[in-house]
Amino acid sequence: EDEEEKELRQRFMAPPVSGLRELRRRRRELRSRMELLIMETQAEVCRALADLDPGASFAVDSWGRKEGGGGISCVLQDGEVFEKAGVNVSVVSGLLSEEAARQMRSRGKSLKAKDGKLPFCAMGVSSVIHPKNPHVPTMHFNYRYFEIEEADGTKQWWFGGGTDLTPTYLNEEDAVHFHKTLKEACDKHDLKLYPKYKKWCDDYFYIKHRGERRGIGGIFFDDMDSPSKEEVFQFVKSCAKAVVPCYIPIVKKHCHDSFTPEEKLWQQLRRGRYVEFNLVYDRGTKFGLLTPGSRIESILMSLPLTARWEYMHNPPESSKEAEILEVLRNPKDWVH
Amino acid sequence: EDEEEKELRQRFMAPPVSGLRELRRRRRELRSRMELLIMETQAEVCRALADLDPGASFAVDSWGRKEGGGGISCVLQDGEVFEKAGVNVSVVSGLLSEEAARQMRSRGKSLKAKDGKLPFCAMGVSSVIHPKNPHVPTMHFNYRYFEIEEADGTKQWWFGGGTDLTPTYLNEEDAVHFHKTLKEACDKHDLKLYPKYKKWCDDYFYIKHRGERRGIGGIFFDDMDSPSKEEVFQFVKSCAKAVVPCYIPIVKKHCHDSFTPEEKLWQQLRRGRYVEFNLVYDRGTKFGLLTPGSRIESILMSLPLTARWEYMHNPPESSKEAEILEVLRNPKDWVH
Repeated sequence: EDEEEKELRQRFMAPPVSGLRELRRRRRELRSRMELLIMETQAEVCRALADLDPGASFAVDSWGRKEGGGGISCVLQDGEVFEKAGVNVSVVSGLLSEEAARQMRSRGKSLKAKDGKLPFCAMGVSSVIHPKNPHVPTMHFNYRYFEIEEADGTKQWWFGGGTDLTPTYLNEEDAVHFHKTLKEACDKHDLKLYPKYKKWCDDYFYIKHRGERRGIGGIFFDDMDSPSKEEVFQFVKSCAKAVVPCYIPIVKKHCHDSFTPEEKLWQQLRRGRYVEFNLVYDRGTKFGLLTPGSRIESILMSLPLTARWEYMHNPPESSKEAEILEVLRNPKDWVH
Repeated sequence: EDEEEKELRQRFMAPPVSGLRELRRRRRELRSRMELLIMETQAEVCRALADLDPGASFAVDSWGRKEGGGGISCVLQDGEVFEKAGVNVSVVSGLLSEEAARQMRSRGKSLKAKDGKLPFCAMGVSSVIHPKNPHVPTMHFNYRYFEIEEADGTKQWWFGGGTDLTPTYLNEEDAVHFHKTLKEACDKHDLKLYPKYKKWCDDYFYIKHRGERRGIGGIFFDDMDSPSKEEVFQFVKSCAKAVVPCYIPIVKKHCHDSFTPEEKLWQQLRRGRYVEFNLVYDRGTKFGLLTPGSRIESILMSLPLTARWEYMHNPPESSKEAEILEVLRNPKDWVH
């Protein structure tokens, strides 16, 4: 028991939702291995962030869901380096209506239910990091796994996820480092993955009414269910392990950069666009807000601490503000 | 011509979309009278606000829509008294698909189209006023008129609108004044209107995922097409004329109140909820964002200059912050 508690403290931010003993008992099942992976990712990212912001600390909340499962939310707010950084794990299970099950898959496959209800299990780690300094970009990542059992006992399963960067100002070197790190994680598994998921990311994070992407992209995928459960899991693991190396060096490089009040203002306007994307378009946020019993504070953790909307703000031509807008309007390839 | 220009300058913020001569030619038609009413309302409200904020001035933009019609946006930003105040008029016409026409009516009446297209005309005035001082509430109003022509030449028409208040802190005297002024405007026409539209307002401005209303309400109605076009127009006119008397005295009373940094912070958090309602639930905003060719800057003019989201912010029991939350969770009757 004491050994177990010690291990928990060392490896994770809080005891896993399913319990360490249960996870050990069914250690060969993919959902157990995925739960350990998302717990490890949460701890790894939180520790890397806390190391950069020694004065601040993560508030850790474990919460339960009466319909089954729960989650662990870690939030650092108003630090020296980070304005708001949240890393959230959730592991939920229960019964879904056929309609809700269809909505969970972006391709909307139909599923055969027994008595109209489908047993499901959904888990994931998701995170948004909003730094204070306008020269440090915002980063978001999310890796998730779903299982749904059909009437005849067959199990549908799939993975989804992605990592993407939202800078206030363009720094080409950072953009290349970020994309290159993600590409290397993808290339270990299949050379087709990075180009496909880079494009999916640019398409997904599109603020239609502005004609802009939220940021400079990264990778994004959903409904991934081939070549095999094991291979997709290994791919997702590589992506999750790439989060710290793709982002933390960029934070370290710029967190002491000097900045002007005008640069801070532009950051706040870009934060406003971030809010627009998340509340108007993001499927995860919309799904969460509409799901009875979901934990609103963990879903809206993704919103920045502060944001700004100015009427008719148009940066002057060939300014640094216009430079990033150009890239948000016409996505670039950062690595070949 | 000179006389006409003089009249325009005196009565309106900019020349009306349909042109003064055209409006005179068809002066007996309801859509002309409504266009004059929304133009007068815009000017009346802008002048009342500008009088209270002498250092600031309204930026006036006239814009056209290539599909037909246009609008006039008046925005005052970063004044002494007002953080952001926008009053927008739009007058648009063209052809609607049956699907789009159905979406415009909240009750979703079906309409018979000729060749799948319905000629329509939509006009309205809409406004959101975000003051700087946390003791001065945010106010929103909107009055609009629609006409759709069916295949057999019959014209469907209806009015919609409302005026509602969003305080940061509760002031019962202000709440009573606001609702009483609206009730008097309604009661001149039919004693049933205020109770019905007060409830509709509480139901409409509901932030479901928070279990809170956006503010302390007012009146809201849609699809109003009885007892007669003339009578509904007279009712809408009374409501539009009530905007200045229901709100301006409250601004005058509090715009020099002293406030603490904590009170300003609470205002910013409530501004965040305002953004959540407008981007997630507001039908007008969602319809606007999805309509090709709509003017995004005029639609998102309703967003505050600044907003804030804190993770797990819960005001202490029996604080002034908890007092307003209680009323947002359980709407009250302010006048009987």
